[in-house]
Amino acid sequence: MRDRPIGVFDSGVGGLTVFKALEERLPGENLVYFGDTAHVPYGSKSPKAVARYSVAVARFLARRGIKALVVACNTSSALALPQIRQAVAVPVIGVIAPGARAAAEASPSGRIGIIGTEATIASGAYTRELSRRKPGLRVMAKACPLFVPLIEEGWWSDDVAWLVARRYLKDFHGSGIDTLILGCTHYPLLKPVLRRVLGAKVLLIDSAEETARETERHLAGLGRLRSGRGVRRDFYVSDGPDRFLGLARRFLGSGVKRVRLEQIDA
Amino acid sequence: MRDRPIGVFDSGVGGLTVFKALEERLPGENLVYFGDTAHVPYGSKSPKAVARYSVAVARFLARRGIKALVVACNTSSALALPQIRQAVAVPVIGVIAPGARAAAEASPSGRIGIIGTEATIASGAYTRELSRRKPGLRVMAKACPLFVPLIEEGWWSDDVAWLVARRYLKDFHGSGIDTLILGCTHYPLLKPVLRRVLGAKVLLIDSAEETARETERHLAGLGRLRSGRGVRRDFYVSDGPDRFLGLARRFLGSGVKRVRLEQIDA
Repeated sequence: MRDRPIGVFDSGVGGLTVFKALEERLPGENLVYFGDTAHVPYGSKSPKAVARYSVAVARFLARRGIKALVVACNTSSALALPQIRQAVAVPVIGVIAPGARAAAEASPSGRIGIIGTEATIASGAYTRELSRRKPGLRVMAKACPLFVPLIEEGWWSDDVAWLVARRYLKDFHGSGIDTLILGCTHYPLLKPVLRRVLGAKVLLIDSAEETARETERHLAGLGRLRSGRGVRRDFYVSDGPDRFLGLARRFLGSGVKRVRLEQIDA
Repeated sequence: MRDRPIGVFDSGVGGLTVFKALEERLPGENLVYFGDTAHVPYGSKSPKAVARYSVAVARFLARRGIKALVVACNTSSALALPQIRQAVAVPVIGVIAPGARAAAEASPSGRIGIIGTEATIASGAYTRELSRRKPGLRVMAKACPLFVPLIEEGWWSDDVAWLVARRYLKDFHGSGIDTLILGCTHYPLLKPVLRRVLGAKVLLIDSAEETARETERHLAGLGRLRSGRGVRRDFYVSDGPDRFLGLARRFLGSGVKRVRLEQIDA
């Protein structure tokens, strides 16, 4: 059981930030990644469609013999976690709960901002999770639909990123937030720009690291952690493996050798 | 046969610019629109995926009894026209040939620019079509992946649009182009910004109007034009009908009453 891989799933390349955090925290684990690039982006799709795609990918990874599934997509974690848990027999870890816990613990004033895709923000998942953990928090959420295409274009650190970020985040001015949850796995790449817009005092919570920690706790509790050498890395996408390979190398370096195409019926 | 609707198909809302041009030129025709919002955007998908989705939508519209199919999506027209024509028995009109013809006729110097999605530009479809029509043209193409999300966000006439347009179009400076093909059905909304960046002398070719004219010629040649009163308008999408309804009303006005959900197996 220990040698089985951890499955990591996202709508596209964004989940590679979580993949990387898992590699760093759990260097002995085998990992298999699935990017549902035939349906990307999830953030503007309906809850039903997101659930249908997510369940199909989870079932595919379950057939690959994974020992745990990390849903490294905020939209899918916000909208489809119960359906995914029903569809597969292995432990399923989403990114919402770890991010919300980290923010609730970190914020001195209890005023927390959240940014994410349209679907994630509309779901209210972060707000619910935060108030469940710590009643009395003051939470403010804002959908930022252009951030993902901006990052996919590679424009995450220039004047366009700055102008777009300034516009989206102007609602937070005067709100007194001291903590901002990056509620989308693409957003860590925007950290320098977000810091410039919000100032250095606002704490940026990136759920990748938190999710890796949660995964470690989970596997440790089940006695399923692996610490051996010689790990496997497998990458699957539902469309455009060559395009994904290029982006994956920008995220993870030249170690990514091969991306396989796997059409998913959903 | 005359009373049968014309089918209009796009990956999302962009094709509504063609729908509107058809309404204006052929006010007596019944129209049925399909937006493949479960798979939008097509512009960053692989040719195989675009062809699979396009054929599935074309077959659905064929089952609705259309008398002609307008492929109001540049990406689909660039990558999947032969497959669509093989899949359905009615005449199929794409947007590439009409746009290319208009540009070749309009350009005094023969220096023509093209902007479009990644997939449309990578296909080389416009360049091929232009040189087939008029050898010796000097053509320059540029993919602008952020324009569609920018327009879907409603930011088509402000400083972000201007900055993004200026960056994409800077390759055209000093190229001497006098004509620019808007090779994506979303782009007509950016006309004021594009004019500001390129100057008033560059002619902007919008294939919507040309495609409506081509459709008229085609149906007239077959004796299938309808000029009666009391027309039908039907709208289908493969995901998120409510979201589509809001965007469709921004394009077409409050006359859009109902959008139906139709899942497409592709």
